[in-house]
Amino acid sequence: MKVVKFGGSSVANDVQIKKVGSIVADDTDRKFVVVSAPGKRFENDAKITDLLIELSDLALNNNPYEKKFTQIMERFSEIVNELELPQSILADIEQSVQNTLNSDAPDRMKADGLKSIGEDSSAKIVSEYLKSKGLNAHYVNPKDAGIIVSNEPGKAQALPESFAQLYEMRKKDGILVIPGFFGFTKDGGLMTFSRGGSDITGSIVAAGVQASLYENFTDVDSVYAVNPTIVSNPEKITTLTYKEMRELSYSGFGVFHDEALMPAFQAEIPVCIKNTNNPAGSGTMIVSDKDPHTRCVVGIASDTGFSNLYVSKYLMNREIGFGRKLLQILEEEGISFEHAPSGIDNMSVIIRDSQLTAEKEINVINRIKSELYPETISIDYGFAMIMVVGEGMMSAVGIAEKSAAAFAEANISIEMINQGSSEVSIMFGIRKDKLDLAVRSLYQKFFG
Amino acid sequence: MKVVKFGGSSVANDVQIKKVGSIVADDTDRKFVVVSAPGKRFENDAKITDLLIELSDLALNNNPYEKKFTQIMERFSEIVNELELPQSILADIEQSVQNTLNSDAPDRMKADGLKSIGEDSSAKIVSEYLKSKGLNAHYVNPKDAGIIVSNEPGKAQALPESFAQLYEMRKKDGILVIPGFFGFTKDGGLMTFSRGGSDITGSIVAAGVQASLYENFTDVDSVYAVNPTIVSNPEKITTLTYKEMRELSYSGFGVFHDEALMPAFQAEIPVCIKNTNNPAGSGTMIVSDKDPHTRCVVGIASDTGFSNLYVSKYLMNREIGFGRKLLQILEEEGISFEHAPSGIDNMSVIIRDSQLTAEKEINVINRIKSELYPETISIDYGFAMIMVVGEGMMSAVGIAEKSAAAFAEANISIEMINQGSSEVSIMFGIRKDKLDLAVRSLYQKFFG
Repeated sequence: MKVVKFGGSSVANDVQIKKVGSIVADDTDRKFVVVSAPGKRFENDAKITDLLIELSDLALNNNPYEKKFTQIMERFSEIVNELELPQSILADIEQSVQNTLNSDAPDRMKADGLKSIGEDSSAKIVSEYLKSKGLNAHYVNPKDAGIIVSNEPGKAQALPESFAQLYEMRKKDGILVIPGFFGFTKDGGLMTFSRGGSDITGSIVAAGVQASLYENFTDVDSVYAVNPTIVSNPEKITTLTYKEMRELSYSGFGVFHDEALMPAFQAEIPVCIKNTNNPAGSGTMIVSDKDPHTRCVVGIASDTGFSNLYVSKYLMNREIGFGRKLLQILEEEGISFEHAPSGIDNMSVIIRDSQLTAEKEINVINRIKSELYPETISIDYGFAMIMVVGEGMMSAVGIAEKSAAAFAEANISIEMINQGSSEVSIMFGIRKDKLDLAVRSLYQKFFG
Repeated sequence: MKVVKFGGSSVANDVQIKKVGSIVADDTDRKFVVVSAPGKRFENDAKITDLLIELSDLALNNNPYEKKFTQIMERFSEIVNELELPQSILADIEQSVQNTLNSDAPDRMKADGLKSIGEDSSAKIVSEYLKSKGLNAHYVNPKDAGIIVSNEPGKAQALPESFAQLYEMRKKDGILVIPGFFGFTKDGGLMTFSRGGSDITGSIVAAGVQASLYENFTDVDSVYAVNPTIVSNPEKITTLTYKEMRELSYSGFGVFHDEALMPAFQAEIPVCIKNTNNPAGSGTMIVSDKDPHTRCVVGIASDTGFSNLYVSKYLMNREIGFGRKLLQILEEEGISFEHAPSGIDNMSVIIRDSQLTAEKEINVINRIKSELYPETISIDYGFAMIMVVGEGMMSAVGIAEKSAAAFAEANISIEMINQGSSEVSIMFGIRKDKLDLAVRSLYQKFFG
């Protein structure tokens, strides 16, 4: 029994939805179908969810929203008409929008209700289309599916009782089409997950029904060993572990929401990333464990936008609590950190630039000066981080050497290195202007 | 104006003290002489300070101590007689011991008083010897020199007012011989520094009198680039920065107490490590800054006896405060840590084995489990750490590569790597049974 999830580009128009129909029909194990809202049909197209958010902003601020409403309905009309589905679907969608706008719920809940209409309508369209092709398909509302969530509009979390209820859905007849992105509180209030939350629904359903496989259909053939905007035509990754996926998701590997994987990961459901436009391709499998004899390094992740808070103090490492106090000051100022490599008398704390503001920086520096009396303190911008990722790297000799050689050959100075005993990754910090050069040199070394 | 400090082996007997005399006479800038207590004359010999501690333990527990007292006085007699100095020195030493034993001070202060007699007597002997050679030398008690310390028997700290008082000593006539290892509280109570505290006195005096150089005479020609028990006849280091010295002192480089350097470091006094038995040798200079064009890697420090506390948890790095809480649990259990390299979802905390007990380990593991809900937690023993040290390593390309290649060539898997942006060191963690092999391979790479 498989759970198949289709992203926004896979349901963006009639052509794509026909591909979805073929994929579902092609394998009778594909019982649970989770769908996103219609996404972009071409580069500068609007996503339905964005249009719904604009509609919501207009309506809730008592501005005229009719034009936006028309634009949304035109997108749905085009799909419904091209697929030759009953007009009643459109009336149903229109009614959903009106009912939400006219409800007496608080604004935040109305906004969640409007946002969810993209996925909800998509599920209605896909189930009708599957029926029209002779399949025994049913639209299932998340409430009926048993997706029970916390009362946090826009960032709801699935509650543990969801899983047992979802398991009951296995008994249902036919193919069940479930809209992604939202669930219901115990009191019956509609709440959306965070953005990209259709992946969360897919993962929750896969965990709940104890799927043999969770197939995540998107618009790329696989996860690549390196960012394709830096290295052209990079190697495809056939198998990844959850841990490797997490390390790679550090950056540039945004195939999907890595947090979304959590429920599938905990239930040990294998995940397959596939391409709706090339369903025969093998895609990328994400599994708990893999054959230790496969290649040590599976991928190279990289990202810019890091700063380095550097603090030094003679005899720092004799001072019990120094590191903890430094991290606590950051925490109290609301700053999360990535890594904290240290020497004997110094510590570098790597922070994403997005965590810092001029005011926070001044506060942090002043507090460290007055509470920890360092000899040196500085914040340097413009760092890039590169993660060389692969489970079982550590048991192999020479991975660090090969990596370091790639930097040396590209004549790049390594500013920071960090490798815990995780056996999953080595992190290198360099100046950001050298990033592409470094990534290409590493790729050449490990995959060239 | 120089401060010269002589260690225990340099004043162990008449032969050595004659060398001290020549060294002091040889350079009229050597105005301040700080001395340790007589140390070992041969491998299994007793140090005077150890004999005094034994005497103190016996006497303060009301056991007969006369035999020990005789043994101590015999050591001093031999020195005084061989140097043909007045017998009054011996009477003076004997009187000091008796006065301390008979005083009504609390036991901890009596113990400090007895321990200090080694250095005090050594200073009296050396100053008398210098006089006998026609030099204008004077014994100066630390109270008269102005070494004012905190009221912490056995671990006193110099108070800031000491420095101004010491500066006044510049005006005094002749060569001033000051016993190391102790000072006096504002109330006039004698307090010793921690063990090895003659180096502390030397450093305080050098800082106080604003010496042009602090010469630390010991029994080795220089600081070596690697532990001579692992690599025979290693290269001598001619110049080190304070930072490099600190990183090297991590282990195996116990030429002297690295904490002792603090006052000299803060006052930016250059330090020279020299050999009493080879004063013509150039020794090792320790300075604030050095020519950036000198060799990048100055030394390789290594040590065993480390454990690795490893914690992993999916999405750890989204959890603000995880790292801080982990370190806080350690701190609350009284455990200090060395380094904390991390991956995306895991953290390794490197701890010296001496920080752990079976009970502390159980507490820490239980607390981490119940407070942080990790997926994996383990403590692994048997790690060795190697530091490749050198200021300006970071601006050089290829140091990480060369280091990693040394491990790969020796077929050693690197378990952990840690390099902050300190520009002073890279740390490698490996299994301890591979330590000697790794150090030899690194030495060959950088110095071979």
